[in-house]
Amino acid sequence: MRIALDAMGGDFAPAAVVQGAVMAGRANPEVEILLVGDERALQRELASKGGVPPNVRTCDAPEAVGMGEHPVSALKRKPSSSVARALRLAADGEADAVVSAGNTGAVVAGAALLLKLLDGVRRPGIAVTFANPTGPCTLIDAGANLECRPAHLVQYAIMGSVYHQHAFGVPKPRVALLSVGAEEQKGNKLVKESRPFLAELDLNFCGNVEGEDVHQGRCDVVVCDGFVGNVVLKTSEGLGENFLAGLRERAEKDVWARLGVKLLAPVLEKMKRWLDFSEYGGAPLLGVAGICIICHGRSNDIAIRNAISAAARFSRHDVNGRIVAALAAERDVWMRATENSG
Amino acid sequence: MRIALDAMGGDFAPAAVVQGAVMAGRANPEVEILLVGDERALQRELASKGGVPPNVRTCDAPEAVGMGEHPVSALKRKPSSSVARALRLAADGEADAVVSAGNTGAVVAGAALLLKLLDGVRRPGIAVTFANPTGPCTLIDAGANLECRPAHLVQYAIMGSVYHQHAFGVPKPRVALLSVGAEEQKGNKLVKESRPFLAELDLNFCGNVEGEDVHQGRCDVVVCDGFVGNVVLKTSEGLGENFLAGLRERAEKDVWARLGVKLLAPVLEKMKRWLDFSEYGGAPLLGVAGICIICHGRSNDIAIRNAISAAARFSRHDVNGRIVAALAAERDVWMRATENSG
Repeated sequence: MRIALDAMGGDFAPAAVVQGAVMAGRANPEVEILLVGDERALQRELASKGGVPPNVRTCDAPEAVGMGEHPVSALKRKPSSSVARALRLAADGEADAVVSAGNTGAVVAGAALLLKLLDGVRRPGIAVTFANPTGPCTLIDAGANLECRPAHLVQYAIMGSVYHQHAFGVPKPRVALLSVGAEEQKGNKLVKESRPFLAELDLNFCGNVEGEDVHQGRCDVVVCDGFVGNVVLKTSEGLGENFLAGLRERAEKDVWARLGVKLLAPVLEKMKRWLDFSEYGGAPLLGVAGICIICHGRSNDIAIRNAISAAARFSRHDVNGRIVAALAAERDVWMRATENSG
Repeated sequence: MRIALDAMGGDFAPAAVVQGAVMAGRANPEVEILLVGDERALQRELASKGGVPPNVRTCDAPEAVGMGEHPVSALKRKPSSSVARALRLAADGEADAVVSAGNTGAVVAGAALLLKLLDGVRRPGIAVTFANPTGPCTLIDAGANLECRPAHLVQYAIMGSVYHQHAFGVPKPRVALLSVGAEEQKGNKLVKESRPFLAELDLNFCGNVEGEDVHQGRCDVVVCDGFVGNVVLKTSEGLGENFLAGLRERAEKDVWARLGVKLLAPVLEKMKRWLDFSEYGGAPLLGVAGICIICHGRSNDIAIRNAISAAARFSRHDVNGRIVAALAAERDVWMRATENSG
């Protein structure tokens, strides 16, 4: 298996990405890693590693897409950017998966454009998994599709369920629709229109849930539109970080509290990992005809290594093959969802 | 000032509500509190208090609206429910404010119906304030209006800014629009259409923010549609509770960590208050022609007491008078927002 790694994407690129690639290369000798980025910068980074595993290679891509750039125009203007070239390698069959911590919008737009979509898929969706104490919970969509229609949510439910089942070994994931109350009559137009179709699917649909349920173990897969999902993801991150920082800051002022923090250090470290959404190695973009793992912009070397392992796992379990089969089996439902709501 | 208190609303009603009323009555002798609910149940509760302050009275309302009931039909079917009667007292000028921890949908619908809206207001919005370590941050709308249009967000920005300024003494609150990135071109249709109008307002508008900024002190007022706002509120609550519970649970397994939790107890208590969104005494429903404070369903006596104080403060600062003036001054902007987007 060959993985094209966008070496220039992310806040700590290329250093953290190269380090993550070297770590992953050592841990997975069967995986070939293509570091896509500025050749000279990559060679400089690799030279500092003191021994590069033979399964880590480079592929020159002199340009980079910045985090603030407009996704589609950046892709058009910069065909030899690291993200475009990594996706191109996958599109041309020279790589089996793409991993990027770069501009999410550019990765999503580029993947849809270059890899194309799986048979029948209307819109791809980002599936991000929270490492809750009660077990993993996958939220889809975390920001690929900001204007969703019912058919999109129906397909997200199917794709999210298949992914969660095979990525985390949960036989019949409990799939829920994110709303403002459990009651059927509650929700916005999108939720109300989507719910009956979700209930029809051959899934373990457990109805509507609220924001708190994303972190409380009441469901395994949460379906929502990309705007809401992105806000949930960022709110959770912000609150978690603030919580840990606030705890440490307040404890600083008191000698006993400071000792308390020291004694709790191993527990706080575990809590931090819960709130670190790269724990599960990045978020797959489900629905594209290929494997595309999106990492957090702030990904460090460990997050990159985990993302490479996640890409390999995704391939091993043939998640895309199973998604295509599941979508085909439920074609009648999402076709009706499309017709009834445009 | 007379406050009508929905004594049957909330998970711990009427006990916690009556207790909160007694506490508030003692602390604010100038405020008259009308406990609206089942007379016999209220008398029973009051009898157990050992002395009821003279400024706490009861008003019989034999029916109650349940948390799962459909708001509008429940109000129609139960005109003598505690929430309908409390609102009716305010509508008839027999009370100056209403406080309820009951079915939020019923309170919102009832307030709009019975109190009517302030001059020019298109939709009322719930303003909930997070007690972040960096200072209070008010989010509007937290769930009153699930289908927002740009004119609604424009009015929420104005009302939220006025409220935050006078409730928390912040001279020029920094008002932000919740989106999926700070860049102007990011966001869903509603955000993209609303932003130019928000930028035109005579407010301290600081642009678009992401979910994490709700808890990180980058802005004082966050504007969003009620669906998103409700999800942010519930996600924050769920994560905060889980965090504290997770910390305690993990610490249980280790004697040193257990000691650490003991030493940190005062700090954790403060953190808990940060995550307790009733700290600021409930969320006002802004835009109605009256004072209506919505409390969390799980409100305890202290939350109810705080909500009564918040209602009194709202009245003292004439927040509604100032909202009407601010809306009139910006009429041109929200009228254009209405015309341009329906």
